[in-house]
Amino acid sequence: MEHGGDLTLAIERFGGTHDDWLDLSTGINPYSYPVPDDLPLSTWTSLPARGAEEHLIAAARQAYRIPDNLAVCAAPGTQVLLSLLPTILPEGPVVLASPTYTSHRDAWTRESRAPIEVSSVYSLPADAKIVVLVNPNNPDGRLIDVKSLIEIARTLSARGGYLVVDEAFADVVPGATLLPHIGTENVVVLRSFGKFFGLAGVRIGFLAGEKTAISRMSGLLDSWSLSGPALEIGARALRDSTWQDRTTRLLIEDMADLTVALSEAGLSVFGGTPLYALAGLRNPKGLHEALARRRIWTRIFDYAPTWIRFGLPGGPENLKRLTDALAEALKEV
Amino acid sequence: MEHGGDLTLAIERFGGTHDDWLDLSTGINPYSYPVPDDLPLSTWTSLPARGAEEHLIAAARQAYRIPDNLAVCAAPGTQVLLSLLPTILPEGPVVLASPTYTSHRDAWTRESRAPIEVSSVYSLPADAKIVVLVNPNNPDGRLIDVKSLIEIARTLSARGGYLVVDEAFADVVPGATLLPHIGTENVVVLRSFGKFFGLAGVRIGFLAGEKTAISRMSGLLDSWSLSGPALEIGARALRDSTWQDRTTRLLIEDMADLTVALSEAGLSVFGGTPLYALAGLRNPKGLHEALARRRIWTRIFDYAPTWIRFGLPGGPENLKRLTDALAEALKEV
Repeated sequence: MEHGGDLTLAIERFGGTHDDWLDLSTGINPYSYPVPDDLPLSTWTSLPARGAEEHLIAAARQAYRIPDNLAVCAAPGTQVLLSLLPTILPEGPVVLASPTYTSHRDAWTRESRAPIEVSSVYSLPADAKIVVLVNPNNPDGRLIDVKSLIEIARTLSARGGYLVVDEAFADVVPGATLLPHIGTENVVVLRSFGKFFGLAGVRIGFLAGEKTAISRMSGLLDSWSLSGPALEIGARALRDSTWQDRTTRLLIEDMADLTVALSEAGLSVFGGTPLYALAGLRNPKGLHEALARRRIWTRIFDYAPTWIRFGLPGGPENLKRLTDALAEALKEV
Repeated sequence: MEHGGDLTLAIERFGGTHDDWLDLSTGINPYSYPVPDDLPLSTWTSLPARGAEEHLIAAARQAYRIPDNLAVCAAPGTQVLLSLLPTILPEGPVVLASPTYTSHRDAWTRESRAPIEVSSVYSLPADAKIVVLVNPNNPDGRLIDVKSLIEIARTLSARGGYLVVDEAFADVVPGATLLPHIGTENVVVLRSFGKFFGLAGVRIGFLAGEKTAISRMSGLLDSWSLSGPALEIGARALRDSTWQDRTTRLLIEDMADLTVALSEAGLSVFGGTPLYALAGLRNPKGLHEALARRRIWTRIFDYAPTWIRFGLPGGPENLKRLTDALAEALKEV
């Protein structure tokens, strides 16, 4: 399975070592939350205590503005959560807003529930039971407004269905999150810790929403699926609203710089979020490979033969490296 | 849900802080494998690379002597693996060798497949499709020989069933593991990293065995369920056979000392492994509470009103503390 974001592949095909590469293939914040150097030894040695997970979830409730009437479940990343969604949600036709992060389709297809893919959620099949969408969408950044989402959720709830919203990149798009607006509708929302906090290796993700579904997920994951260090680091980072505000501003500025740089290089940026920019050109595969020969790893898409996605380079030096490489690479394409 | 091993409960009921307590309620090695202080920052910040997981699994194959014909899946601890077993294994009657670690029963019951509990696996119900057992057993240390296990596995395989062996404590019982003896039988074996290596907070577990079942489990867990630090620490520890051999000897010696101390205190030790001792007395609840008032946390069992389990105290000082506390506590019982 290929999710992108794995430098192992880049190195296998194009050589070099990890340190040689500028990895722009993910949407992970390059300015990671500082890993505390005073992690107690017991976070590694002891079974995580129930209290530590409750503490993490309380911090998530605050950071993500999750109302008290919703339940929350923590997991080692959202990947395992989205993979288990077909097991916890009811039978019936599944609709996926496409194109989007391919793991959603894979997860349902693996459970013999291949989704009906639609390009707009504003006109859904009449028998849709589960609707899955990513908001803001990956890779194009498309946003669906809260009012429409609540309407979809009500329609689905009335027939015993569910709305699944993957908010992997909602941290950096103010006003995007549906969480504070959910009442009694059957909605479950995925939140990713690693992308915005730049700590994808720590493995933390959340599923928040309707209580029956969340309780079924908690049951499947059972206890102790998060590591002791993850519980500790996650709780600190989610409570640190000063860092979160400063970082959001920084990412928005950096994305403005990246967008200008890509445009000046001749690429047309037509979508994205503050964590990735989506550009279009005739031969993205050629550009992708020409950049890879310069040890810059970007993301292209099987299903969209004109798209190329760039993550944030993480500072002026790396941006310059990208700009220089782009100037050369585009001559080869 | 209550698995024991959570000091939060002890503190809620009996007071004190984490540091005040001597926690003997788990079977976790108190001499933990040293956590490297040179973990690369990228283990925290980057998505774990496919290569890192392959590296961990290769180390597990070597440490656990897993034959090439078996598949292996890594997870953030065995708890999530055993919880997902009912989802990946075929329909049909489930038999559990009891009494044992209660999460096995809970996992199947949660999926409306409550197991038939048997006290001996030597005479199984004729329609058994799945047999689950812990070997050596927790808490009594009961061992089932390899030859009998293979025979059970063959019987089950012939009717499309599976044998599930939880080898959570097999590291410290030489010759106990079934893994090197599995051929084409439908067997899946759980291996816990955290107990023997004393790193329960790192969250690593494995499922090894028949390929279809393992591939289904890998699919459900999808990618990246282990943290970057876990992949790094796990691979190092599993490759360090010098540490493993030395530690096994140390644990066996320590358990001999603990057994003598418990016997001299008047307790009759009748089972266990080098990581825990099971003793019997008329009123273990009274002793458990009298020790808890002295900030020593042990494990008692709803289903066995005469049992009390002690983990290793971790050195002569803590053993003395236990011995002194036992002498006082037994007067109060």
